[in-house]
This record gives sequence, structure tokens and C-alpha cells, in this order.
Amino acid sequence: MAGNSFGQLFKVTTAGESHGPGNVAIVDGVPAGLELSEADLQADLDRRRPGQSKVTTQRKEADQAEILSGVFEGRTTGTPIAILIRNKDQRSHDYSDIKDKYRPGHADYTFDAKFGFRDYRGGGRSSARETNVRVAAGAIAKKLLREAHGVRIVGYVDRIGDLAAQVADPAAVTLEQVEANIVRCPDPAVAEKMIGLIEQMRKEKDSVGGTSSIVATGVPAGWGEPVFDKLKADLGKAMFTLPAVMGVEYGAGFAVARSRGSENNDVFVSKQGHIETTTNRHGGMLGGISSGMPIVMRCAVKPTSSLPQEQPTVTRSGESTTIATKGRHDPCVLPRFVVMGEAMMAIVLADHMLRQRAQGRG
Amino acid sequence: MAGNSFGQLFKVTTAGESHGPGNVAIVDGVPAGLELSEADLQADLDRRRPGQSKVTTQRKEADQAEILSGVFEGRTTGTPIAILIRNKDQRSHDYSDIKDKYRPGHADYTFDAKFGFRDYRGGGRSSARETNVRVAAGAIAKKLLREAHGVRIVGYVDRIGDLAAQVADPAAVTLEQVEANIVRCPDPAVAEKMIGLIEQMRKEKDSVGGTSSIVATGVPAGWGEPVFDKLKADLGKAMFTLPAVMGVEYGAGFAVARSRGSENNDVFVSKQGHIETTTNRHGGMLGGISSGMPIVMRCAVKPTSSLPQEQPTVTRSGESTTIATKGRHDPCVLPRFVVMGEAMMAIVLADHMLRQRAQGRG
Amino acid sequence: MAGNSFGQLFKVTTAGESHGPGNVAIVDGVPAGLELSEADLQADLDRRRPGQSKVTTQRKEADQAEILSGVFEGRTTGTPIAILIRNKDQRSHDYSDIKDKYRPGHADYTFDAKFGFRDYRGGGRSSARETNVRVAAGAIAKKLLREAHGVRIVGYVDRIGDLAAQVADPAAVTLEQVEANIVRCPDPAVAEKMIGLIEQMRKEKDSVGGTSSIVATGVPAGWGEPVFDKLKADLGKAMFTLPAVMGVEYGAGFAVARSRGSENNDVFVSKQGHIETTTNRHGGMLGGISSGMPIVMRCAVKPTSSLPQEQPTVTRSGESTTIATKGRHDPCVLPRFVVMGEAMMAIVLADHMLRQRAQGRG
Amino acid sequence: MAGNSFGQLFKVTTAGESHGPGNVAIVDGVPAGLELSEADLQADLDRRRPGQSKVTTQRKEADQAEILSGVFEGRTTGTPIAILIRNKDQRSHDYSDIKDKYRPGHADYTFDAKFGFRDYRGGGRSSARETNVRVAAGAIAKKLLREAHGVRIVGYVDRIGDLAAQVADPAAVTLEQVEANIVRCPDPAVAEKMIGLIEQMRKEKDSVGGTSSIVATGVPAGWGEPVFDKLKADLGKAMFTLPAVMGVEYGAGFAVARSRGSENNDVFVSKQGHIETTTNRHGGMLGGISSGMPIVMRCAVKPTSSLPQEQPTVTRSGESTTIATKGRHDPCVLPRFVVMGEAMMAIVLADHMLRQRAQGRG
Repeated sequence: MAGNSFGQLFKVTTAGESHGPGNVAIVDGVPAGLELSEADLQADLDRRRPGQSKVTTQRKEADQAEILSGVFEGRTTGTPIAILIRNKDQRSHDYSDIKDKYRPGHADYTFDAKFGFRDYRGGGRSSARETNVRVAAGAIAKKLLREAHGVRIVGYVDRIGDLAAQVADPAAVTLEQVEANIVRCPDPAVAEKMIGLIEQMRKEKDSVGGTSSIVATGVPAGWGEPVFDKLKADLGKAMFTLPAVMGVEYGAGFAVARSRGSENNDVFVSKQGHIETTTNRHGGMLGGISSGMPIVMRCAVKPTSSLPQEQPTVTRSGESTTIATKGRHDPCVLPRFVVMGEAMMAIVLADHMLRQRAQGRG
Repeated sequence: MAGNSFGQLFKVTTAGESHGPGNVAIVDGVPAGLELSEADLQADLDRRRPGQSKVTTQRKEADQAEILSGVFEGRTTGTPIAILIRNKDQRSHDYSDIKDKYRPGHADYTFDAKFGFRDYRGGGRSSARETNVRVAAGAIAKKLLREAHGVRIVGYVDRIGDLAAQVADPAAVTLEQVEANIVRCPDPAVAEKMIGLIEQMRKEKDSVGGTSSIVATGVPAGWGEPVFDKLKADLGKAMFTLPAVMGVEYGAGFAVARSRGSENNDVFVSKQGHIETTTNRHGGMLGGISSGMPIVMRCAVKPTSSLPQEQPTVTRSGESTTIATKGRHDPCVLPRFVVMGEAMMAIVLADHMLRQRAQGRG
Repeated sequence: MAGNSFGQLFKVTTAGESHGPGNVAIVDGVPAGLELSEADLQADLDRRRPGQSKVTTQRKEADQAEILSGVFEGRTTGTPIAILIRNKDQRSHDYSDIKDKYRPGHADYTFDAKFGFRDYRGGGRSSARETNVRVAAGAIAKKLLREAHGVRIVGYVDRIGDLAAQVADPAAVTLEQVEANIVRCPDPAVAEKMIGLIEQMRKEKDSVGGTSSIVATGVPAGWGEPVFDKLKADLGKAMFTLPAVMGVEYGAGFAVARSRGSENNDVFVSKQGHIETTTNRHGGMLGGISSGMPIVMRCAVKPTSSLPQEQPTVTRSGESTTIATKGRHDPCVLPRFVVMGEAMMAIVLADHMLRQRAQGRG
Repeated sequence: MAGNSFGQLFKVTTAGESHGPGNVAIVDGVPAGLELSEADLQADLDRRRPGQSKVTTQRKEADQAEILSGVFEGRTTGTPIAILIRNKDQRSHDYSDIKDKYRPGHADYTFDAKFGFRDYRGGGRSSARETNVRVAAGAIAKKLLREAHGVRIVGYVDRIGDLAAQVADPAAVTLEQVEANIVRCPDPAVAEKMIGLIEQMRKEKDSVGGTSSIVATGVPAGWGEPVFDKLKADLGKAMFTLPAVMGVEYGAGFAVARSRGSENNDVFVSKQGHIETTTNRHGGMLGGISSGMPIVMRCAVKPTSSLPQEQPTVTRSGESTTIATKGRHDPCVLPRFVVMGEAMMAIVLADHMLRQRAQGRG
């Protein structure tokens, strides 16, 4: 029960369903005095928005955020910021299929098992639509981090299916490079191929998975807590809260399983009076606490479960049947995932920024 | 601040340092009436204990738990259970090296950056020693889950360096198979090679990483919450709270990045009146809620950072130096990691079992 | 920071200011399957609403709640319920006085001290206006409690100034008795005098305090937790979160200070197979856990600080000045307070109902 | 479930029963660098200790605290501080009475109703014995507050039965005045009479209630959060967590019910460049946020329920019987209560000090 809040001091609580009136976030813990307007939220909302390009779902949603509280005369007041994004594209649907059948790979069955009952319209609360208000909350967190410490958070697609981007230094990737193409891959040559692959998937009524890296630069050493609220743990949880994420790693990640300590340890050196490491296999976190090196995480995102092709499944009463998704879907969610991953990283980092302040050393 | 509690209803709070008087856990939220004694905790403590075999550190610790509260006449009372494990092997050490130098791969530098000051004896709170009381708490969670729902949690080592176990069905691995050898790998042939590899690492003054799978069977469909407290998110966080974990995946994990939706979706079928899937690429969780299929997670664990060989580093004041770990260390932490991973999975599942009960459908 | 959530399992998070766009509550933890519509919220909203009678402020607000999520086909889905109440009566105001002067008894100065800055329009977040969404949340809690356990919560005014109601048995007071007059006092004779006193206060440009009792019947024995989350402690906190509350007591309350143990202890007896007490000086809670007897609390509410008469104060820069509240205020908040107190009691009881369910004994 | 933690950033978790091995507190969130030793805890433990004078219970407990973690080389490390106080006076008891009968005024019945089972030895977890580790935690909070802001917290007894102390200014009472007599009443003449009354109660096999004021000076303006975590709400909850507390008020308290706004509002003035009020009927909190004036709270504490005289009650199976407390009890808990009230106030203030720091304005 009650699993719709995230964070301790920078705390985001959300509500809303895919095809209900709208989604709401209450962002509690934003310090007073930050300049903020709805325009600050819109840039990332536009990056997450469905229908933004030919590689995403064609559902049309303006995703315009209304700030209902917590901002006065252009600045945050220290009181909670409520954000409302109404659902617009509620065209009349025929839900008879989805109402009585369990879509493979979706949460239809598990919601029924949990609640005995579900809002079946477009997945209800299990739809990725709920992430729109998270992205708005993330935009506030990003601004706070940037103004307080110069932190920058950039995500990008590094793999779709068998197409892997070549990225020499994750921490050097810029927002401009990412936004230069519609798949948000900083390797332009591979990006073109990725676009082709996604279009092929749409034609084949199929979908494809991938991975996305999310990188934060400018995070000072010392954020994160020793045991349960390690920065890696809170970031790991944050990424796993996102729909379709099946794996999360940071720094060298799963590659450490094949490595030796003598290769894997990063070497500390002193540079211009501060301490850093010559390499970053530790992904910016040691003992779960930021080291001052870039925070580098990578998420594995599964191929969209909704497919226009017929798939075998069962009805609520257990009879064999088939189902094909009607209408609009993303053949690959990676291009839009990037913004969600950035938002969740920002929310976690803002929380730990405030926690370290409380320690008296922020 | 204040990051030493985990869970909402089944809530574990810990304290303690590697070379201080001892470690303490307060386990809050254990329902009244569960039969419990210190012997119930000892089995897993013995599996985690240093010095248990030739492939682990030779530090000697009995790791005997004392229950200080919450149990009366052999049963839990519903009040919090405090567990104390005193540190025994506090031989007089020469800490001059570790006091002034930053060990590569360890949290020495980040603790200093965070707190301005640290308990440098054996890593203090950043040492994996703190996990002993987590294992004790996990033993309570396991017993609760087993008695209430027949849930079984079994972890095992599936990779050390380049040696990968062949495991046909993760959900079929038994505790007996795991405990049949000292590396806790259910593939006996590979286990032998793993033991050889670890001994080689010790001789070469090096260490090696690996992966461990943690599997829960018997979890009913419906545990986990829709958005932020998805079961995968809480389990993901739980695994990342463990020292040395650099990556976590469940079900098909990172392999989804290369797969198509038509391959990746598991097919629902009806069997003897209940619904399940024919395959388990979803690792027992859909939309972050348990599906009734086995929960299967995998963690990437880095090679031990402490090495007996000289490694370059810096002093607290930034001067170049070298450091070699004196004394005792694990050349590979995987054999002991298994028990920690099981404990954290148990704690998360117990929490969500109680949360689903509160929903009125547990 | 982040103090805008209340409850563990039945969890209410709010946002909103007095003269901003509106107020929002997210009610998390409502079990699936409860019949619910906006009409269920409106009855209590109308009881709390300004402008409802001649003894309240004449500010006009319809206070109509919109449910944005968590309800589908007339039933709760188990996902969070977002409630929006827009502010309507935002007539153009002259805020120059309140902007630069500190109103006595209000939070203007302390908000400035805390945040360095404040939304000065009508008190912003410190206004009692934020309680409208709490009342809506409370209406959900009341319905849940009533349907699950037959719990009834009734509040009433028992004192205004020197006028004290005669109430033989707090647990016998009915909603009908309370709603029979505009001061919500179940003693009709005293109610008439109270109305006269409030009208006199309005004429004298003054205000008056009072006390309100809030009573829950039907709460089973066993709710509440032993130490920090005692039912009395969570209820006590709940009442103190309400504006103007300066004191809270339960059962015999402050009168215990003058009593002896031999008089004060309630005697246990067995009636029709269950155990109860012959008297209820313990106000339905022993050791912080409900006893099955009615829960009886009483709150002391201060006289409205806003006065139409000139009061001495200082400006933000510390210069002496005077201030008189322009426009509309309640000469006595007690008649509207009753509903707020009921709402907070309901929210606490719903939370502990779910917590006891999680224990497996609900 | 899980109600044994208190606070957000300065967070205290406790465990332990009256006649079990001991009580434990884990104090999480103490910033690094505070000088601390067991001696810092002992002064208040000695003030709370049973057997300290002729007006308290004669049970003998040394109540010596052992710090198990979080302190290194005489300073806090920023990691959680575990405190253990073993129970010493576990003389062999005959519990047959208390096992099967419900003591009037105690939690025996409600624990059984909640858990179906209880540790009946000396009240188990419902005994005030658990407050010893709270007092130890409070001593840490006091030291933190004193060193960071010069905050001083002093509690005293202001009423026992019909004997009321004359205290001109609660904020002027010193620890020395309080400790000058064994009832902890700063009015020496009344203190003498109180001692006489308590002795009379012991002779008459009865007990008596009273009130205690707890005062904090030096708290800067700006602590506390606007809505649910108002300082008055967290302090109110804190006091109600203490055994036997039936009422809590601050500032003018229940007297506001009879007052008018024109009398009750405190007047702001400017003094030496900062703003304060000429009177303190608001008890140092406006809108739930500290005003810089002394925080003044008052608690009503019921007469001890344990009485050596026979009282009517029922057995677990509902049969009528009588019970008389054998052995040792406090005829009046007020003299020891003072220290518990101070501790809880300190814990709340330390928490809000850290929360305001996180805001960036601490």
C-alpha cells in the first residue's frame, strides 16, 4: 500500500491513470527562492511527449503542465508544488479486448491479482503515461541541482537491438548531441541505423529493446548515505521504478564479474588540489557515496510489450485466446525513456543534495 | 542523513562498525506469534561468517546473535526484535596506513568527503561486516515468508570470472545443491574450477568478481505496488545496498536490449485453474507486481578492492603513495555474498507481504 | 522540509495556498473496491465551507472537489486518489498591508523567518484554507472505516468562551444533533447563546475561542502501536496539525492532574462475552492502543487572530505600526473546526486500521 | 505495525521490554564531529532512573548506557549510534496474577487484543522502562542543540494533585532550581508539600497525577514545517508518546478557549534589531513554526495505574476478580517524567534543526 511517494527531503508523490482526467505530482521539499515557471517544465515534457517524431507512438498529447501551488511571483516559496497534466487524447475506445484479456508482458494480470479489479483503459496506472509528471518533477530537480552545484544530467540511447553506439566518454556527451536526432543517440551514424531499425519494427508489427545511459556531472564528493540509502541504491531503485527497465548497472557494471581487482580498482590521484581517479570504473560512487567523478548509470529497457500482431494469451477466466494491440504504440521506447531516466536521476540527486546539507556539509 | 532503515512495515534499522563493539539490528514489524529463537538466525549467520572455508577471509568471528527483545516464551510478541552481534576478533592492529591513505576501490575517500572524518578501523561502517545483522534480520523474514506462504529463497553463484555455471532452471536449484560446495555454485563441475580460480587469486595477491542469482519461489501474485514501490524497484534497491554490487537485473535482464517484443513476451496460460506463463523472461514481476512465477534476480559483484599487492594511491593530503592490504581478505566475495542477497530479498518480500495484507487481499 | 504528508499506509499529501489556483490532496493507500464519488466528499466539504451561515466568514467558496484519479466505474482502484479544489473567490485584493506588516497571531513573521519570503495573499499556505482537501480526504477515510468496521466519527462544539455545553455522554452525540444548529453544539439551549456570543464578537470587531470534542465509536480494540505510534500520539499530532489548536486532551484529560489512581482507573468488566470498562476516563485508549471503548478527544482552539480592529505590530523592517484585517473573517472558528477535527481523526484511524490488518489481526 | 521509530532526519528507533535482557536505541542522523561519550548520557539517565529518591519506585536499576557504534575517538562519526541499557534488577517474580488478570489503567488488555499474546512481565513493551533509551537519545539531541544554537531545554513539575507551583516565568526556570529538590518543582515551598503528598499517597496505597512544563530557550525563528509537520504537531505527538500523558498544551493552552482575540494575540515589537513578542501566549510557535520566543509546553500526567490496594478487574477469560500490584511503584511519576519530556522535546527540535538546515537556511 501507499507506494506513490519517492524521496526523503525532495519528495515526489504522484497520482493518475492513462485515460483518466489527468496526472498529478506534488513535489515537496523544493527550497524557497528558486526561479520557476511552467516553461521550465515544458522543455523536458516535450522531449518525453508522445507523438514527437516518427519513431514514437502517434498518440497526441500536448502534455502541458499547470503549476497549482508553491510558486509565487516567479519563485518557489518552500511549500509543495502541485503539478497537473490533464489527459487530452481520450478518444472513444473499444476496450472490450483489453478488459477481458491479459496482454502479454503487461501488468493487466498482476493488477487483477493484486486489487481484484483494474482500470483497464490503456493500462490505467501501469501505463508509462504516469511518468509525465515525474518528468516535470525532474525538471525542477535539475534546475535546483544546476543552480546550487552546476550539476548537469544527460541521458542518451547507447543500444537498440544489435546496434550499439560508440561513445568514447559518457561524461562528455552533451544535450545538443543527444537532441540532434530523434532516437537521442550521440553517435550520428548509428543513430541513423537505429531509426531504420525502429521503422522496420513498426512495419513488422514488432518492437525492440535497448539500453540507455544516464550521466550526471558536477556532483560533489560526499552525497549518499553509508548503508541502506547508498546513492547507488537510491539511483538503482529510481531506475527500476521506470516501466520496462529489466536491468541497471553503474560504472563498469556487469563487466566486473569477469575482471580482477588489480584491473578494476580506479587509481586515486591529486589534481589541482583535489582528489580524483584516473579512470571511472566505479561510476562516480564508492561505498555508495559520490566520489566527485561523473555518475554513470545504464538501464536495460525491454521491447514494448504491446504489439499489433496477434499474440496468444488467456482471458480473465483462463480461456485461451489471442490479442493484438489496436492503435498506437512505440516500437521502441528508448528515445523517450532517456528523459524519464534523467528525471529520476535528478530527483534522487536533489534529495541527497538536501540530505547532505542537513548534515551541515552541503 | 538517517539512511540506516529499510522497509515500510517489515522495517530493519542497523548500526555498527567493523571494529567497534558490535553490530545491532532492530527488526520492527514482525507479526506476533512466530516461533523464533537465536538458533533460527545462526544457520544463515554461519553461511555468511568469515573464516568458514579456505575460499573466504580467515578473520575469525563467531558471529553469534543475541536477541535482546521482541521474543517471549519462544514466540515473537509483535514488538521490535533487537539483535546484537558483538565483534570478537579485534586484534590490535596497526592502522597507520589505512588512516592516512585512501584504499583504491574503498569508501575511505568518500567517507572523508562526506563526514570530514571517519572510523578508519577496517573500513568502519563501510565494511561488509555490517551485513551480519542484515543476515540475521533476513533469517526472520525467511521464516515469516515460509510459514505464511511457503516462500523459499535460494541464492547461488553463477559466475566467477570467466567460469559460468550451467543452470537449467534457476527456480529448481535447492539449498542442498548450493551448500554442497564451498563456493555455493550448484554446478559441481564448475564449482571445482571456481575453487581453483579463487585459490589462484590468493596466490597472485589478486581478486576476482562474479555474479550471483537469488531466486524466490512460492511468492503469490499481487505483491508490489504500482509506481515507486514496484517489487522490482525495492528488490533492485535492496541488492544495490549490498557492498560491491555494480549491477542488478531480473528475468531476461540486460539480454532484453537485443530482443524483440515478439520473442520477449511470456505467454499466459491457464493451468489447474490458475494463470501462469510458459516462460519466465519477466522474472516473476510484471508492472512491478509479482506474477506468481519465481522471482529471479542476478547481481554483478566486483572483485574485492583490498589486495595484498601494492597499489598506487594518494594520502589524505593528496601526496602520491602506495598501499597494500595487510592481513586477511576474501579473494572473491561471491560465496559469502549469496547469503546477503538472500537476506535482502527476504526483507523486501516480507515487507510487501505485509503491505498486501494491509490491502486486505494478503 | 517535506512536511506535507501524513500517515503510513493511509497517506495524505497536500499542496496549495489560500489565494493560488487551488488545493490538491493525493490520498494514497485506499484499498480497492470502495464505492466512491465526488458526492461522498461534498457533504463534509459543505460543512467546512466558508459562507455557510451567519456565524462564519462570508468569503464565498463552492469548494467543489474534482477526483482526478484512483476511481473507476464508481469504485476505488487501489491507486492514489488525487483531489483538486480550485479557489474561486479570488477577488482583486489590496495586499499592501499584509505584505509588509506582520499580523499578530499569524504565521507571517515565522514564514518569513523560515523561507526568507512568503506568499502573503491571504496567508498563503498558513491559511486554514488548505484544510478543505484534508476534509475531502477525511470523507474517504470515514467511508472506509464505516464500511469496514461500522466506525462513526462525530465532532461537536462543547465550549465557546464562557459558554459550556452540557453533554451527558460524548459517545451518544449524533450527527443530526450536531447539524441541528449552526454552531454545531449538541446542547440546543447553549447553542443559541453561542450564536449570540459570536454575533456580539463580530459587532465588537473581536473573536472568541472554544473547545471541540471529537468522538469515534465502533473502533475495535487493538488499533495503535506500542511506543511512538501510539494511537493517542498520532491522534494528538493530527489535531495539532490543525490551525489554531493550542491544546489536545483525551478521556479525562487535564483533569487527571488533580485525581488519584484509585479514582482514575476505569474498571474492566465482561459484558456479553467481551471486555469493556464501566467508565471511560481513558478515552478509549490504554497504552496508546484502542480498548474498544469510544475514542474521545478534545481540542482547545484559539480565538481568530484576524481582527477588524487596529492591533499594534511591526513591519518587515521592524518599524512599529498597526494593522486591522480588512474584509471577511470568522469571529469564532469552532463551528467549522468540528469538521476538520473529524477528518483528521478519520485519517489517523484509517491508517491504523490498515496497520492492524497488516499485523494479520485486522 | 512498525511504530518504533521517531523523526525524519534525527531519527530514533527503539526496542526492548521491561523485564527482558535490555533496551536498545539506534539514533540515526547525528551529524559527524560532535564530542560524545557515555558520560554525556548518564546525567539524564540518573535523573530518570528508578530508585533515585524516596518519592520514586524503589526498583534498583543502574541504567548504565553502553554506546555500541557511531562514536570514534570521542566524536560522532555521522553513522548511527546504538545504545544498549541492560536490565539488571530481574529478580525472580511471581507473575501469575499479572499473567491472567488485566491490570486497570494498564495496556494488558489492549496488548492482548492487538497481538493475541503478550510479554506480561512488568508490562513488557508497555512499561515506561523503554523510556530509558529515549532519555539517552535525548541527551545526544540536547548536546547537539546546545552546541549548534545554544538551545537549553528545562522541564519541571508545576502541579501534583491540588498543589500548584507558582512560576513567574517558565523560560527563566533553571536546571539548578529544578534539581534542587526531589520532585523537580522550582517553587521550593510547594515542592515540600508535594513531597509530603507523595509520601501520603504511598501510605494510602494510592497515587496522584500532575502536570509538567517543558521549556526550550534559544530556538531560532523558522523551525517547523507549514502543514503536517508543524513544530507544535511533532512536539504534541512526542509528548503523547510518553506513558500516562492524557493532555498536552502549549503557550496559553486550554485557557484560549475562554479568551478573546484582542487579549490573546501577542504583540510583535522590534528589539535590538530582531523581532519578538511582548508576551508569549503563543508558546513560541506561530503557524506551527518557531518564532524565536521560548517554546513552552505542558503535559497532563495521570496518576500511576499500579496500586498496592485491591482493585476490581477481570481475568483474560472475562471472570470477575481483583488485583493489587505487588512490589514497587511510583506513587507519582511526575518527578521522573520531567526528564522524559525534556528528551522528547530535544529529539523533535534536533530533527527540525536538521530539516531547516536542509532548507539551506539553518
